[in-house]
Amino acid sequence: MFKLFPVKGGLENVQGFFCGATNVGMRTKPSGTNEVEIAGDVAFIRSATPCDIAAVFTTNVFRAAPLRHFQKYPKDFQTDFVLINAKNANAMTGEKGIEDIDTLFASLAKKINVLNPVMSSTGVIGYRLPIDKITSAFETLDFNAKNSDQTAKAIMTTDSFKKELAYKVELEDGGSFHIAAICKGAGMINPAMATMLCFIITDADIPKSDMAELLQASTEDSFNRISVDGDTSTNDTVMLLANKQSGHYHKEAFEEALRKIMFELAMLILKDGEGANKLVAFEVTGAKNQEEAKKASRALSNSLLVKTALFGEDPNWGRIASTIGASGVVCDERTLTIHYDDLLIYSDEHRELDKEREEKAYKIMKQESFKISCDLGQGEGSYTSYGCDLSYEYVKINAEYRT
Amino acid sequence: MFKLFPVKGGLENVQGFFCGATNVGMRTKPSGTNEVEIAGDVAFIRSATPCDIAAVFTTNVFRAAPLRHFQKYPKDFQTDFVLINAKNANAMTGEKGIEDIDTLFASLAKKINVLNPVMSSTGVIGYRLPIDKITSAFETLDFNAKNSDQTAKAIMTTDSFKKELAYKVELEDGGSFHIAAICKGAGMINPAMATMLCFIITDADIPKSDMAELLQASTEDSFNRISVDGDTSTNDTVMLLANKQSGHYHKEAFEEALRKIMFELAMLILKDGEGANKLVAFEVTGAKNQEEAKKASRALSNSLLVKTALFGEDPNWGRIASTIGASGVVCDERTLTIHYDDLLIYSDEHRELDKEREEKAYKIMKQESFKISCDLGQGEGSYTSYGCDLSYEYVKINAEYRT
Repeated sequence: MFKLFPVKGGLENVQGFFCGATNVGMRTKPSGTNEVEIAGDVAFIRSATPCDIAAVFTTNVFRAAPLRHFQKYPKDFQTDFVLINAKNANAMTGEKGIEDIDTLFASLAKKINVLNPVMSSTGVIGYRLPIDKITSAFETLDFNAKNSDQTAKAIMTTDSFKKELAYKVELEDGGSFHIAAICKGAGMINPAMATMLCFIITDADIPKSDMAELLQASTEDSFNRISVDGDTSTNDTVMLLANKQSGHYHKEAFEEALRKIMFELAMLILKDGEGANKLVAFEVTGAKNQEEAKKASRALSNSLLVKTALFGEDPNWGRIASTIGASGVVCDERTLTIHYDDLLIYSDEHRELDKEREEKAYKIMKQESFKISCDLGQGEGSYTSYGCDLSYEYVKINAEYRT
Repeated sequence: MFKLFPVKGGLENVQGFFCGATNVGMRTKPSGTNEVEIAGDVAFIRSATPCDIAAVFTTNVFRAAPLRHFQKYPKDFQTDFVLINAKNANAMTGEKGIEDIDTLFASLAKKINVLNPVMSSTGVIGYRLPIDKITSAFETLDFNAKNSDQTAKAIMTTDSFKKELAYKVELEDGGSFHIAAICKGAGMINPAMATMLCFIITDADIPKSDMAELLQASTEDSFNRISVDGDTSTNDTVMLLANKQSGHYHKEAFEEALRKIMFELAMLILKDGEGANKLVAFEVTGAKNQEEAKKASRALSNSLLVKTALFGEDPNWGRIASTIGASGVVCDERTLTIHYDDLLIYSDEHRELDKEREEKAYKIMKQESFKISCDLGQGEGSYTSYGCDLSYEYVKINAEYRT
């Protein structure tokens, strides 16, 4: 048996890791919060000793330069340094974008000994990195800092709050280890892990072989289940770094901690969905199979009409039904039932909302988070995805993002 | 050879057809325009003689009652009457929804002789039709009216203007025929023909066998190429009625007229996209095959990030590239080129927008309509779909629609 509990702060809890950020003026105008301005635009995470690393990247075919740079290392490479910048995605920059990363790392090597450094970028697509600005960061960064707060803030783009979490795992034999993570992401999140960066570090003595397996499975059940606007970016990255320094490990315990931390971060991203105010779970059960449940559930979390109805707090189940009907899954209006939380909204016997149920439905929809459950009555397949509402604010943020 | 020219007005141009509308108070509160209030909520189109009929319906599995009622007639049935109502979709109403239509037609038959009448409804999902109100319309409707303007207005829901068009075709042998149409549709339009009703009538002496073939092909190249918000409704219907009264027909001429009228109506729907201000053609060429071109083109016209960038008039080609990259088609950033109208925006050689091209791009994006062309450089496949921007207004309309 083991115990798992949250601890204060973030990355600084994990033995042997350092992190920090600085500001080199890449954020050309206030991006909403002064906090971010001060926290900076170039950040790093490093370990005193070499780490094994596992990563999940975007499915977008235009993978950004840092992702392609990462993939040039041999399969089982170890690293001790991650360099991160905001405001420029280094995407669609061709071979030159990859060369720019090598140039940066050559300068970095003059300041600190690094092993196979990797990079991660977020921001606007199509512009070369400002090499001189980023290089200037190496003069001011304190490579022995343990400033998780600053690091989490420096990677924000349209995020309205920083996202960091840490857990301690205590094992039965008295041993313990830590796992901590920071991530960024607000808009453009999709069931394909879009415009998000997530860095997870641990001092657990995890075997390399477990890392990719557990990271992939947890990604599937966390970041791949959320949707803000259905788009998929060129830079999405989830990284897990393990320096093994605690000397302790327990697979089930690690898996539970990893799943918890990733699911909670995914919910934070959704909560911070650009202009979003509500977090809704779309549970589909009774589908012909799991693939169909997933299809229907994702159709709901991605539908503009559903999202605007959530924003309007309108218990219009017609949009829910219509979206399921359009999703291409096997269903029948006679076997379908729809619940909002525990309230029956639609079934073959109850098609029109009476005043009483309508009042109850309004109350449910006024909550910050609730569940919409649809049972298709066709089989055993089930899937839950998570979405948010679409507000005026979303349009404003995205109409004005670049300029 | 033949001549094709637009004529004033709408349905009244076609020999032997009658149409009109009345107001029975189904519109419970002002829906924006007083015009619509006055024009009414129950409308009809009828022919003095039996018509052949062809129809294309939604792909949503929850087909509304009027569509299922239509499909109960034998395959080659003729009709002379279409009853249309706004404000209530008669969808997700089960078998009772179909019985309600029979009840209405029984009342109608007491007022006027009708042959296999069909119905078409649009509005909110999940409520039974108000039988008494609709029946009361039969007392006030003038079945010998030729009021296309009133009919086109009565079928509007969130439309901000009525949509009607008419063409006259003159044949070389001196014969001529007319084709005219009305349609409604604004939000919820998708490459799957969503929330739109379109009624096309003609006095051309078209053989029944040509009707379904030409209607299907023209739907594919018109309503199926537009996207407002990617949703697909329970009620979409495109109907073609032919009473043959002109005694003239010419297949190529009819096809050209039908394609023209349907494409123009599709563009009107897009122009009236809820809260939309811009009409954009997304042309994809050089795809591996046509299927891939279609996939990429539709990904663009459906992307929230592309739509909000259009609204913000931001020449952010990164969102275009990223959306193509996420669409799952074969492409490579070295072979991709992007143009806005005739302006080169991205190619392997021109990745960053210089000031001059950026200024030009801004000017193009300020237009009411323009073209975004993406050549994938992978093959011969091409496809164009049409989309619009996403504004604050869209969110407002859809948050408030039902209540």
